[in-house]
Amino acid sequence: MSIRITGSGSYIPNRTVTNLDFAKHVFLNDDGTPLNYSNEIITEKFKQITGIEERRYVEDNLLTSDIAFFAAEKAIKDSGIDPETLDYIIMAHNFGNVKSGAIQGDMVPCLAARVKHNLKIKNPKCVAYDILFGCPGWVEGVIQAQAYIKAGMAKKCLVIGAETLSRVVDPHDRDTMIYSDGAGATIIEASEEEGGILAHETASFTYDEAYFLYFGNSFNTSHGHDDDVRYIKMHGRKIYEFALKQVPLAMKECLDNSGIDIKDLKKILIHQANEKMDEAIVQRFFKLYDLTPTEHVMPMCIGKLGNSSVATIPTLYDLMVKNHLKNQQLNKGDVVLFASVGSGMNINAFVYKM
Amino acid sequence: MSIRITGSGSYIPNRTVTNLDFAKHVFLNDDGTPLNYSNEIITEKFKQITGIEERRYVEDNLLTSDIAFFAAEKAIKDSGIDPETLDYIIMAHNFGNVKSGAIQGDMVPCLAARVKHNLKIKNPKCVAYDILFGCPGWVEGVIQAQAYIKAGMAKKCLVIGAETLSRVVDPHDRDTMIYSDGAGATIIEASEEEGGILAHETASFTYDEAYFLYFGNSFNTSHGHDDDVRYIKMHGRKIYEFALKQVPLAMKECLDNSGIDIKDLKKILIHQANEKMDEAIVQRFFKLYDLTPTEHVMPMCIGKLGNSSVATIPTLYDLMVKNHLKNQQLNKGDVVLFASVGSGMNINAFVYKM
Repeated sequence: MSIRITGSGSYIPNRTVTNLDFAKHVFLNDDGTPLNYSNEIITEKFKQITGIEERRYVEDNLLTSDIAFFAAEKAIKDSGIDPETLDYIIMAHNFGNVKSGAIQGDMVPCLAARVKHNLKIKNPKCVAYDILFGCPGWVEGVIQAQAYIKAGMAKKCLVIGAETLSRVVDPHDRDTMIYSDGAGATIIEASEEEGGILAHETASFTYDEAYFLYFGNSFNTSHGHDDDVRYIKMHGRKIYEFALKQVPLAMKECLDNSGIDIKDLKKILIHQANEKMDEAIVQRFFKLYDLTPTEHVMPMCIGKLGNSSVATIPTLYDLMVKNHLKNQQLNKGDVVLFASVGSGMNINAFVYKM
Repeated sequence: MSIRITGSGSYIPNRTVTNLDFAKHVFLNDDGTPLNYSNEIITEKFKQITGIEERRYVEDNLLTSDIAFFAAEKAIKDSGIDPETLDYIIMAHNFGNVKSGAIQGDMVPCLAARVKHNLKIKNPKCVAYDILFGCPGWVEGVIQAQAYIKAGMAKKCLVIGAETLSRVVDPHDRDTMIYSDGAGATIIEASEEEGGILAHETASFTYDEAYFLYFGNSFNTSHGHDDDVRYIKMHGRKIYEFALKQVPLAMKECLDNSGIDIKDLKKILIHQANEKMDEAIVQRFFKLYDLTPTEHVMPMCIGKLGNSSVATIPTLYDLMVKNHLKNQQLNKGDVVLFASVGSGMNINAFVYKM
């Protein structure tokens, strides 16, 4: 028996927000003092580091669970399965449904229950729950689906990653330009075909790293400031150093456990966090084998889509299998390494044979 | 191999809030009109239906992840395991950390990561994640731990349920008197002993029932009302009818799958939602076997502890194994049915041989 991805879908929001759209933002340092650069320089430097030119925001009337549903519907259709045969709906997010203009997240009922409701699935044996695991939530959902299938508790699972980070960003923090909205979904099934998930790896670094990515106050501490309103915040430098050290090691452990030779690795689908960081991670990963990365090994969609947290990897996968990414196809038999890093700090990966 | 609970711990908050403490509350109907009864009559009727005389609230400086840590620490000590050998920390809650006086929930990093941080566990292979599944979250966490152990992905898991519902209640809704704060934790381990978890059952009813329990506005729509501030809300009558119909069926399916005869069932540890509802569920469950409930089959702690959501069952279990509940002991070889119902609407159960 193998465990395979048999369908995928994604939802890319309609509103395109370019770096120029941040021209009038008042960006501040974390102590509330102004940054000593013009916004032109700030956005140019931002683009050089992150690779991000544009990001997508949902329209005001949409919620995280809505776009999760859009992606889920497509994944079910793509797989051809009867949704009533799903054993699990696993939904990764980190902030719940946050309405436009509101600050409270809503997760009662959990978002998976809302998606299941919108999919009009009647079968009560389809268990719908949410997982909070930072950006690696979708990868971890796939690993959990694998556990249920291996344990004989499931045959078909829908795993979704969706987030509307535009609802939780501090307009005075230049890191805001990183974040985006999006949703990706996949059907994970027990299969008689060979291949599928060959190995997985998960690690939670919480001793020193738990608060590298956190929910914190605005950098604007001066006027109209409310201590009880918090936003997504990160210690970028610390995360960069942590990721460069730990992610390549986890990727290597995962690949080695799969028994696949690095020369047979076709693609690395890495969390679209930051282009320069992702490139440095992949460089170091190959260096662990005394190699340099092969051309086109790391497909990227961050330039136009930004960092949509849990949604980046399933969206990237969906774009590739649907042939929407230039020079980036996935073909039968290709070996792919999925890898993610994010709040927790969590790192995970799985090796997948198409 | 069996899968057993090898340690437990709970945290019962210090602040006792009696029904009398609600004497000056202005209780309203859901349309904002005043209730046509005195608070004396409202609280008396409330006590008759729910069995609740008192509930516990955390002190202002404590958060859900803090009390989860207190319970987790006790469970680890109780089991005697080295915390560095834990493979998973699974944390069930539904609102994140909500500070006293604030309305925003905080779940970045996820609460399991904060508990792991406070436990000072260094091992990155201990995976820490949160699950959102309504009140049945702790039971579902145990079922997930079971999946990892069966799939060969884990040997030892810490499963926690913690909630501070006092932070999300509408003072104008008499249902507010139901809710309480608390935390319970257990260690779930692969074991060579016989017994342990014999069967489990989970069902998510979302087609008609998804919004029976929800996050909604205050009943006070008149002055100072903010549409963006929401509280835990329920359609009590609908939940009552749903639970009475579906929970006994799920319990029976679970017990029958375990191969245990109902006459050998010693205890039912049911989610402490509402005493009259719980009694009616257990009545109907026995009636499915043409029996009436045996004496002391359903231990209750709701009278003094209220409904602390995900925390009720692990707290009840901990009180019993530590001999803190009158006429309610658990002894080696006893067969226990754990069962829960809540937001989703989700129902789950497992049969456990001590």
